[in-house]
Amino acid sequence: MNNTSNLSTPAAVTPATTNTKTNNDSAEELKVPPLSGWLTDLHRHHHKDGDTPNKQVRTIGVLTSGGDAPGMNACIRAVVRAGRYYGYRMVGVNRGYHGLLRGEINELTAGKVSGILSRGGTFMMTARSKTFPTEEGIKSAARMAKVFGIDVLVVIGGDGSFKGAQKLAHVGLPVIGIPGTIDNDVASTEYTIGYDTAMNTAMECIDKIRDTASSHERCSVIEVMGREAGYLALNVGMSSGAEVILLPEIETDFDRDVIKVILECRNMGKNHYVVVVAEGVGNSVQIAKRIEEITGIESRATILGHLQRGGSPSIRDRQTACFMGMKAVECVNEGRLNRIIAERGGKCVDLDIDEALNMKKSIARDEILGAKIIAF
Amino acid sequence: MNNTSNLSTPAAVTPATTNTKTNNDSAEELKVPPLSGWLTDLHRHHHKDGDTPNKQVRTIGVLTSGGDAPGMNACIRAVVRAGRYYGYRMVGVNRGYHGLLRGEINELTAGKVSGILSRGGTFMMTARSKTFPTEEGIKSAARMAKVFGIDVLVVIGGDGSFKGAQKLAHVGLPVIGIPGTIDNDVASTEYTIGYDTAMNTAMECIDKIRDTASSHERCSVIEVMGREAGYLALNVGMSSGAEVILLPEIETDFDRDVIKVILECRNMGKNHYVVVVAEGVGNSVQIAKRIEEITGIESRATILGHLQRGGSPSIRDRQTACFMGMKAVECVNEGRLNRIIAERGGKCVDLDIDEALNMKKSIARDEILGAKIIAF
Amino acid sequence: MNNTSNLSTPAAVTPATTNTKTNNDSAEELKVPPLSGWLTDLHRHHHKDGDTPNKQVRTIGVLTSGGDAPGMNACIRAVVRAGRYYGYRMVGVNRGYHGLLRGEINELTAGKVSGILSRGGTFMMTARSKTFPTEEGIKSAARMAKVFGIDVLVVIGGDGSFKGAQKLAHVGLPVIGIPGTIDNDVASTEYTIGYDTAMNTAMECIDKIRDTASSHERCSVIEVMGREAGYLALNVGMSSGAEVILLPEIETDFDRDVIKVILECRNMGKNHYVVVVAEGVGNSVQIAKRIEEITGIESRATILGHLQRGGSPSIRDRQTACFMGMKAVECVNEGRLNRIIAERGGKCVDLDIDEALNMKKSIARDEILGAKIIAF
Amino acid sequence: MNNTSNLSTPAAVTPATTNTKTNNDSAEELKVPPLSGWLTDLHRHHHKDGDTPNKQVRTIGVLTSGGDAPGMNACIRAVVRAGRYYGYRMVGVNRGYHGLLRGEINELTAGKVSGILSRGGTFMMTARSKTFPTEEGIKSAARMAKVFGIDVLVVIGGDGSFKGAQKLAHVGLPVIGIPGTIDNDVASTEYTIGYDTAMNTAMECIDKIRDTASSHERCSVIEVMGREAGYLALNVGMSSGAEVILLPEIETDFDRDVIKVILECRNMGKNHYVVVVAEGVGNSVQIAKRIEEITGIESRATILGHLQRGGSPSIRDRQTACFMGMKAVECVNEGRLNRIIAERGGKCVDLDIDEALNMKKSIARDEILGAKIIAF
Repeated sequence: MNNTSNLSTPAAVTPATTNTKTNNDSAEELKVPPLSGWLTDLHRHHHKDGDTPNKQVRTIGVLTSGGDAPGMNACIRAVVRAGRYYGYRMVGVNRGYHGLLRGEINELTAGKVSGILSRGGTFMMTARSKTFPTEEGIKSAARMAKVFGIDVLVVIGGDGSFKGAQKLAHVGLPVIGIPGTIDNDVASTEYTIGYDTAMNTAMECIDKIRDTASSHERCSVIEVMGREAGYLALNVGMSSGAEVILLPEIETDFDRDVIKVILECRNMGKNHYVVVVAEGVGNSVQIAKRIEEITGIESRATILGHLQRGGSPSIRDRQTACFMGMKAVECVNEGRLNRIIAERGGKCVDLDIDEALNMKKSIARDEILGAKIIAF
Repeated sequence: MNNTSNLSTPAAVTPATTNTKTNNDSAEELKVPPLSGWLTDLHRHHHKDGDTPNKQVRTIGVLTSGGDAPGMNACIRAVVRAGRYYGYRMVGVNRGYHGLLRGEINELTAGKVSGILSRGGTFMMTARSKTFPTEEGIKSAARMAKVFGIDVLVVIGGDGSFKGAQKLAHVGLPVIGIPGTIDNDVASTEYTIGYDTAMNTAMECIDKIRDTASSHERCSVIEVMGREAGYLALNVGMSSGAEVILLPEIETDFDRDVIKVILECRNMGKNHYVVVVAEGVGNSVQIAKRIEEITGIESRATILGHLQRGGSPSIRDRQTACFMGMKAVECVNEGRLNRIIAERGGKCVDLDIDEALNMKKSIARDEILGAKIIAF
Repeated sequence: MNNTSNLSTPAAVTPATTNTKTNNDSAEELKVPPLSGWLTDLHRHHHKDGDTPNKQVRTIGVLTSGGDAPGMNACIRAVVRAGRYYGYRMVGVNRGYHGLLRGEINELTAGKVSGILSRGGTFMMTARSKTFPTEEGIKSAARMAKVFGIDVLVVIGGDGSFKGAQKLAHVGLPVIGIPGTIDNDVASTEYTIGYDTAMNTAMECIDKIRDTASSHERCSVIEVMGREAGYLALNVGMSSGAEVILLPEIETDFDRDVIKVILECRNMGKNHYVVVVAEGVGNSVQIAKRIEEITGIESRATILGHLQRGGSPSIRDRQTACFMGMKAVECVNEGRLNRIIAERGGKCVDLDIDEALNMKKSIARDEILGAKIIAF
Repeated sequence: MNNTSNLSTPAAVTPATTNTKTNNDSAEELKVPPLSGWLTDLHRHHHKDGDTPNKQVRTIGVLTSGGDAPGMNACIRAVVRAGRYYGYRMVGVNRGYHGLLRGEINELTAGKVSGILSRGGTFMMTARSKTFPTEEGIKSAARMAKVFGIDVLVVIGGDGSFKGAQKLAHVGLPVIGIPGTIDNDVASTEYTIGYDTAMNTAMECIDKIRDTASSHERCSVIEVMGREAGYLALNVGMSSGAEVILLPEIETDFDRDVIKVILECRNMGKNHYVVVVAEGVGNSVQIAKRIEEITGIESRATILGHLQRGGSPSIRDRQTACFMGMKAVECVNEGRLNRIIAERGGKCVDLDIDEALNMKKSIARDEILGAKIIAF
């Protein structure tokens, strides 16, 4: 069943699939032809235009939405290349839902996604739209997709973007969501494209700031991304050996959790201190000021800001982008529509969009404890 | 049960535990105290010397063995800090089993592991020993561990190092193995410390080589690490957009799988080509020569070699090093000895060492197909 | 004359040399023995303790002062190694003049400077002292240097630190200054250690920020170091292709120089804009806000801050640190004291400290014009 | 005279200028208009098509030749933008002289050089031509330039490329050469575009290799670029703290200069060794083998190869590329043709091409001694 002939006789399109479980048994891995001979056969099997595994899908659209993330380009490329391999016509929607409403839709040829694998950001751009989330906007957008012949729309973005996709699905435009955001705050997946690059960028910045903190025997307060979710702050802090990590999820007693810890470190012989603060916790300049006032230790704040969003994607983000992009096309091939691609248990799977959007995610308490234990 | 009091009344030491299953229910995650108040209590709960959760363990030794890998230092630090937090005496063995035989064993204080989190290599060094694997060598090594009071030995290395650890376990020295090698070729775990950094290093090198390949319209043959395992080559090749990837696991028809693919790419309009070759496949200089002879396309080989081993660890390697290091100490706390720490299903778990060493790992065929599909 | 024997019969120490010209003819380059045989002879010629080229100098002290800069460690290493090669006793003063006053002075052996070449910051730390600049402070510091037997003090820092050194010279403690600051604002030299690394760091950050600015079609306002000097901002801006560069040296008409330029760029088809602002110009958050209000283009500010100070030094900073460090010891060898090491005309020279501190530096107008011409 | 009006009433074109001296007084710096008001005036002064400062030049061609170097793209961009600013028509020749012969010539608009500042390699590609250096080839090339209306040809490359340019000048096609090669082996200039990036790349690689050399207590032999010139090897070796540096310019006694030095280092307590070898010295794998055989110290060779050619240019290379590119256009403006742009005394100047090509460059002996002194 898991062979190439299967790929050319796919199941019918089921726009709103009722399969709400992870496709663990049947859909968990990309189905491959028997190994012997596949190297030879690959080019021969390159599907001709229109000879698609899913006969009810002719054109796949793809857009990026929400905050940009490193690896979005790699993901667009994977969707386009895998889609074209299976014979679909591939079109790109510029500027997310805003561009969908305005019909900013172009054919994506092989050449258009050449050379973008290693580039940060998204060459199709992203934008916010006030009109789109309204009932009228959703309908307009779905209509515009139909005008350009889009049978399935692949949306690369975060939970907010998926909510838009869900609404499109409900008015009859089949969608596939791929999680791409540096915040890793999408409930249905363990990992989102861009998270690793952003963490490495933040960590490398903190490594540099530690150099100067150490030379001046200062306390460095470093604000990293994360308005509502502290994952990035927690992981970056732990991997940078931060003495204090402040997260929006955890209530903090400033004297006990910041001042006392810094002074204990000083008493143990440390001469510089790194405090990592998630954006959502509050004003990092104020925090630095209070630390200096109370402890007498010179303290400086640095807000890393948007530089965490850019940069050439790390291998983890490129890999995840490639696999999730291919998985999205596999879902189309096999008629599993209105799905969210996710990493669960370290594997690439697809979930029903309604179920995925009902999930909750909470920060791991053991990680927090761990970060404390090995900080000193 | 999952609270701190539990940690101070641990199960008895069971040197050769018979629990051969992944500790999914009880041991899967580091047990944490109730969240409320933990920030305050952390320092108060810092165990006094000797007041260890596992009363039968006083001293934990740690060594690095086999090829070095980025993140080994971060892992030593995590083992030492977590160990000291729970009141154990921590000692380090220099130069792996070679140093164990020679008694190169020193106390690891908090200061000695300060500032090493971000450093490549292993400050405790690693070496090969011809004597150690012999029956006599194993006994000598276990005796020397006893001389220095080591109750449990944590071994950071690959499968070869784990086999040595297994032999030590069989003569009565309890061990814990942590997978650290850039090759990701340890059967029992999905991930080994150092793999991500090595892949990023190789990928960044290929990104640079592509610049000059493109300027000169050349074919670049790039040899990456991987004598018997092609994981690194496959993933790096895919993430670099390599046109051809050659792996030791896959038999190759040179004309069909290399020459024809390059010429097809040329015919599609490409003007430069990247061929990623795993070390074990054969002479990359010869491969470049043959490509040039047959196709007439100027071809150059680059052997990345040992530079893939070094460098400051990426966040993924630092994180994995931290969690696996803490997990090893947790195993000691809870009396689960002779275990291998592993990542399975994206989670940090521990496995029986005998069972872990019987596992097999094979390269994923779907990844290979995927790399082909999106290369063009 | 330019041979090794010369090095062991140096000129007498002239604490306040009256040579106010650049030592173009005699001192411009490190004198070397005839090439034939030097490789053999180098180790043989390693001077014994006390057998120093300058018989009146036994002990050289070295300190880092002011803001830290990448390459300070490399420079300490070069001073110490070259000093020890010529037989001087080398001591390090921790925490700059503050530590000098407190006698925080230790012998610097070969081992103590091993492995620091590639490290950011300064391992001897740096600090501010309110006492030191007073007449009493200067005398105390010179006395303390005498207590520890320091015959010449090498000061690595900026113009402020050199003023302190000048005062020490005037009370009889011979000094040599080496320019180390990321701001490149030392009037007497074309280049200061740390400048290249800081510029590369800032430029790489802007490259990343441009990714996200381009994805979101935003204007990015990026504040870089430079309270009074715009060199870093100008060069970083030019090398990042910034559309607008604001410098403290140049009066700006906001509407004409910022708003109009951005809108002209938009009219030419650009969809994102980078504005580089030197720290001394003013509040970059306000600037971003005004741009957004007037143009309607979404604008965000990023303040790079202290991360520009850290990081492993670039090759240019390591090289300059090595040459300037060796030059300082050569000055001691040849009895040219109270000098500032400088890069002039692309060469490493030494200048009289009084003359050096009277020099003025102004930003090059042609560079400003150039940055404008090639921005569009 | 040095003002904008001057720029619109330039001197007559003097194809083979007889000014053989560095233009120190008149041409040393880009002439700028009075500062007041220039920000306003810049756009107004943007020359209209054809309203060029040099009335005898309408079209400027630009090509890259020889080995590619990081910063070539930045230089093309600067030439094109400055040229267009002054009203010239700008055309690009693909694939160097090979493409010139074949008429691969296209108009370079502002958009075509947008986004290339930070890219490695050369988007106009480079190639070798066997036909071009012949008498017939030169004439054909000059004729083809005339066919496309090229009045002046800007050649970015090394000494070999400049010799081709010189021949073109002699048959009546005015040229300007800009030094771009990672080898820094152009006699007439202190610096060539690409050198700094290549050195940083090599140095960062060696920093990584040192990690693993240190963990394994090995000797690492690292071969860097430099077939005939050892500049890169010397500078990279010095900045990496290499224990031994082998250059093609210096005859080496293997026992005395390699073996003895390594053993002396070992005797001083070092446990790992870095030997940097310039490509032209000989087989680095053999060198590693001999070191291991004689000393018994495990030794491994790494050949960095082409990865030194690629990568995003450093700020020094971007800056130099910008200034040299603008200087080339300034030469056209002022009718100084058949010139080589050079960095001399730390400044950007232009030299007569015949004189420039007669210069010789030798490696600095003092740098060699310095590298030895501070290595231990």
